[in-house]
Amino acid sequence: MILTLKPPATKKDVDAICKKIKELGFAPHLSKGKDVTVIGVIGQNAILRRDVFEAMDSVAFITPISKPYKIVSREFKKENTVIKIGDIKIGGHNIVVAAGPCSVETKELLFEIAKKVKISGASMIRGGAFKPRTSPYAFQGLGERGLKYLAEVSRVMEMPVITEAMNVNQVSLVARYADIVQIGARNMQNFDLLKEAGRTKKPVLLKRGLSATIEEFLMAAEYVMSQGNYNVILCERGIRTFETSTRFTLDLSAVPVIKKLSHLPVFVDPSHGLGVREYIPAMSKAAIACGADGLIIEVHPHPEKALSDGPQSLLPEQFDKMMNELKAVARAVGREI
Amino acid sequence: MILTLKPPATKKDVDAICKKIKELGFAPHLSKGKDVTVIGVIGQNAILRRDVFEAMDSVAFITPISKPYKIVSREFKKENTVIKIGDIKIGGHNIVVAAGPCSVETKELLFEIAKKVKISGASMIRGGAFKPRTSPYAFQGLGERGLKYLAEVSRVMEMPVITEAMNVNQVSLVARYADIVQIGARNMQNFDLLKEAGRTKKPVLLKRGLSATIEEFLMAAEYVMSQGNYNVILCERGIRTFETSTRFTLDLSAVPVIKKLSHLPVFVDPSHGLGVREYIPAMSKAAIACGADGLIIEVHPHPEKALSDGPQSLLPEQFDKMMNELKAVARAVGREI
Amino acid sequence: MILTLKPPATKKDVDAICKKIKELGFAPHLSKGKDVTVIGVIGQNAILRRDVFEAMDSVAFITPISKPYKIVSREFKKENTVIKIGDIKIGGHNIVVAAGPCSVETKELLFEIAKKVKISGASMIRGGAFKPRTSPYAFQGLGERGLKYLAEVSRVMEMPVITEAMNVNQVSLVARYADIVQIGARNMQNFDLLKEAGRTKKPVLLKRGLSATIEEFLMAAEYVMSQGNYNVILCERGIRTFETSTRFTLDLSAVPVIKKLSHLPVFVDPSHGLGVREYIPAMSKAAIACGADGLIIEVHPHPEKALSDGPQSLLPEQFDKMMNELKAVARAVGREI
Amino acid sequence: MILTLKPPATKKDVDAICKKIKELGFAPHLSKGKDVTVIGVIGQNAILRRDVFEAMDSVAFITPISKPYKIVSREFKKENTVIKIGDIKIGGHNIVVAAGPCSVETKELLFEIAKKVKISGASMIRGGAFKPRTSPYAFQGLGERGLKYLAEVSRVMEMPVITEAMNVNQVSLVARYADIVQIGARNMQNFDLLKEAGRTKKPVLLKRGLSATIEEFLMAAEYVMSQGNYNVILCERGIRTFETSTRFTLDLSAVPVIKKLSHLPVFVDPSHGLGVREYIPAMSKAAIACGADGLIIEVHPHPEKALSDGPQSLLPEQFDKMMNELKAVARAVGREI
Repeated sequence: MILTLKPPATKKDVDAICKKIKELGFAPHLSKGKDVTVIGVIGQNAILRRDVFEAMDSVAFITPISKPYKIVSREFKKENTVIKIGDIKIGGHNIVVAAGPCSVETKELLFEIAKKVKISGASMIRGGAFKPRTSPYAFQGLGERGLKYLAEVSRVMEMPVITEAMNVNQVSLVARYADIVQIGARNMQNFDLLKEAGRTKKPVLLKRGLSATIEEFLMAAEYVMSQGNYNVILCERGIRTFETSTRFTLDLSAVPVIKKLSHLPVFVDPSHGLGVREYIPAMSKAAIACGADGLIIEVHPHPEKALSDGPQSLLPEQFDKMMNELKAVARAVGREI
Repeated sequence: MILTLKPPATKKDVDAICKKIKELGFAPHLSKGKDVTVIGVIGQNAILRRDVFEAMDSVAFITPISKPYKIVSREFKKENTVIKIGDIKIGGHNIVVAAGPCSVETKELLFEIAKKVKISGASMIRGGAFKPRTSPYAFQGLGERGLKYLAEVSRVMEMPVITEAMNVNQVSLVARYADIVQIGARNMQNFDLLKEAGRTKKPVLLKRGLSATIEEFLMAAEYVMSQGNYNVILCERGIRTFETSTRFTLDLSAVPVIKKLSHLPVFVDPSHGLGVREYIPAMSKAAIACGADGLIIEVHPHPEKALSDGPQSLLPEQFDKMMNELKAVARAVGREI
Repeated sequence: MILTLKPPATKKDVDAICKKIKELGFAPHLSKGKDVTVIGVIGQNAILRRDVFEAMDSVAFITPISKPYKIVSREFKKENTVIKIGDIKIGGHNIVVAAGPCSVETKELLFEIAKKVKISGASMIRGGAFKPRTSPYAFQGLGERGLKYLAEVSRVMEMPVITEAMNVNQVSLVARYADIVQIGARNMQNFDLLKEAGRTKKPVLLKRGLSATIEEFLMAAEYVMSQGNYNVILCERGIRTFETSTRFTLDLSAVPVIKKLSHLPVFVDPSHGLGVREYIPAMSKAAIACGADGLIIEVHPHPEKALSDGPQSLLPEQFDKMMNELKAVARAVGREI
Repeated sequence: MILTLKPPATKKDVDAICKKIKELGFAPHLSKGKDVTVIGVIGQNAILRRDVFEAMDSVAFITPISKPYKIVSREFKKENTVIKIGDIKIGGHNIVVAAGPCSVETKELLFEIAKKVKISGASMIRGGAFKPRTSPYAFQGLGERGLKYLAEVSRVMEMPVITEAMNVNQVSLVARYADIVQIGARNMQNFDLLKEAGRTKKPVLLKRGLSATIEEFLMAAEYVMSQGNYNVILCERGIRTFETSTRFTLDLSAVPVIKKLSHLPVFVDPSHGLGVREYIPAMSKAAIACGADGLIIEVHPHPEKALSDGPQSLLPEQFDKMMNELKAVARAVGREI
């Protein structure tokens, strides 16, 4: 349930309420708007203790949250969440494009790609140091060495980095080098990993599971946020269906659906969602047209030699051409890249 | 297999080749471009008789068609098919929007909706006279009376009409009143109906089945075209997946995939694909952004009283607002509405 | 809603009630049990006229039907429906196995297969004269000639025949030759075909659509039954999922689910559901173990030469071996083959 | 690739070959049958080094493994793997039933359930101490205290215990108390967890992911086995489809498919697969009929008060009745419970 405080809410009021919330075994989540201060009382069946807070003088009114996800929901927070990383704002007017190779392979290659995609308009770098691979015999990533390359490229090129942490013990390591910690689709319901990501200070990009409903996706974000990390980006990356002409079925309707249900920014990863290079520009345009706040795109100058996911990587020149098209679509929907 | 004729191909050459094709038990399909004339030799294992045609003087070269669908494929015809209905060109530079109620209810209502959507920029009317309904006890449509209303509104408003035929015996009746005969998703593999639609002279709008792969969808179009009707519009309208926040999952990636595999125009029906009014504008923009040639949109002034599918119908004013947004997106991708 | 009459219900009572039901625009469906007579009042919102019948003296009590399907539901009829075809009872203690080739090819082959499967314990023949094929260029069946072969084999071998009608104009033709008219999976929501099947006197075997929910499946059966044909057999034949090691995913849980919701007999077609010969015996045993009333199995002595669906046809000797195993499982669940 | 050694294979031969395999950067996997000794050379593109081993005198012949999974495949090992836990053999003639509550709640309750299910014929106990829950606010399990209860009940009742480890840091803890370490469906592609499970000495029960193909499922098992733990049990527990009358769709055809592709034992968990109590007996019978080596069943004396998954738990008396039915089906397929 959400407590809306009578303005002006003093620090003393807030502290008293938070203390009471904790006494009852719940967790307080504070959200200060320009005019109003609200406090979420989060925990199972919190609404049953409604009377305790109704009796408090500083509480103006109480709103139950009807959804199973709480802090994630638009009921909890009406305005869009905007996440700042340096000069970049995620979830605001500008659409953010992160580009890079599937896996980090060499430092030189990473620099080469970063330079090119930056010129084309990408503002962030993506690349995997720890790679979840279907086969134990496939390339598993460079590990910490890959993270170091990413951090160096990020510093030199002034582009924040997104990279994945695959288990609870990697989260703090990845958070040390990366600007955004990615939780992959196959780990979307790895609940301990979600909690650990919730304890880092870095923003988290959470990918939708292959067969996760949107409600389960939002519940997974709730796991992260329930630990106090409110900077979560949700990323649609294709769901599993019977169709085989694309690797997965990119469920773009997830974008407007999530925008309605939640205040969190939404990204789309057409590279993994489609698995076929030539469909990526069309679907990237569609993603922006339907309201995505950002894109994650795989780019590789020699896709045929890539250590993973070559067939879905754009060539730098294809990426450049696409970015120009995306800028036009962004303007058509009142935004910018 | 496709026979490309030596230019200039005379009528005599064409006739001789077609005669030979028929003698061998296959069907000839003629396609005259500006510079070249090609003849498809369609039938199972036609390629095994390749030598017969290689020996003919008027044949420049022979190309096998690698796909199971033949006349539908880009291999058969490189340029986009453009279907003309009066002044309207489907599959060309302009994007076509058909709008109207789910079911035809009264003549007055149909006129009211047609006037409003025409002002907003729709160029065609949609509406069901024969309605496929899950329950035998639900409203089944006005039947021929509904077709008459549609034809009258079409004539007065100068807007071509799309409406559905549900069985083999309805096709010629529907074709008498409608400009485009629709085959519904649940009939996509009703093969006798497809053949019957292939024998009408009117263009056919074929909706993708709820669980049809794109290959099966194109094979269904091949059924229609194999009967000599080359004016087929393919329409994505959502596939069945596990996700429940929308009625179906609108598979927009079908648009670029089909555009690659086939020369036929592609429409999107977000109303049926999503089943929820408020997501329709976002996904209509996305459909245009990824290359759709047209949209079919349900509009009703009193959706709460509609005899079918109220929750997915836009109000005329919502449709009007959306059309303005769509025009901007169309321009951004180099097209017009 | 269901009207349960006060015993003993006279013909006069029944007629009076049926007359009233029709006056109100609904359809009466009579079901006479040993002790009780019930009349279903079928039509949309019939329950709103409850008061009319409450006022009638011959009505003991009124039960609403909570499901969208009415005559199909267990609420309408508690005891299992048993369909008699000659000596064969479908839906009773005995499990019925229908076997035969996918398509009827020659009369000789049909006789050969029928003789073999009869010795192994099959009591019915299956075979397609009209074949729904994905490609317009594939073998489409022998048509009426195939029906004649089936009828002759049926007469000589004393085995009833199941075969498919693909469109409204074929139903009466097929019903003339066949004992059970099959409606195929791709036509499960071909509503005009369902109604036509409801007007024949022959039992109907209705296959579940590739992406039909069980509720939609039961609604399709309601279409047939609403026309007065109460002899419907429901047949699970695999649903479309992401899994590719079998052609479809045989949803055996549909058997106990349907048994709970409906009084109709349930068959399973593992040949089409799996598409791979070697998995058919295991899944046939499973079908019987979970309560199926019958099986439809494809058998062909030369599957590699079959005109359709060879890879899923059992050899006669494999079928024979399987039948022995099935008999043991049937006994283990208190039934017989 | 698999090296089959010339009999009799001496320890010296084996050591020499293993040394060479390691030198080349691959992993040797030894499998000693009664008559033959085979060594798997596992690693990407191992087959390219085929010539090295062909030159060795002690190698009789070399077989490539055509599947992406190697040690898991029937090509690697022809005979069924039988896993022994005390007197219990998993994957042999006898079918093993593990029963217990979804979550461990109290020690008393665990004892009560264990006593009852043992009398009915269950030979193992299941119960969750760490619970993967969709909501962060739902009961998350008793943790190590739950493991202690399980271990105590196991010791007193002489029933081995299966329980889940949810992250890499829990594996050794769970392995200390449990006889079989379970990896849950949502973690099926948590690759670090799989590797950690591969390093424990305890058998691993691996559940199929909600949207995992059978090939991906076998690849996940390969992750475990590639670390040297060959005692893996595969468990089908339902896949995600569009059908909603059951929680998931239990894909029983996975049983014969896996039995063909792999030598590992296969279990079925109908409780999670169906989510509805009343369908569990029918589908348990089906599982045994199609070849499952074991079942995992949730049993709870007061399902309405269970802290998780009450609606799918059988009452002890329902479980008892079901076990009698299962014994009959097991005998019908030539096995025993």
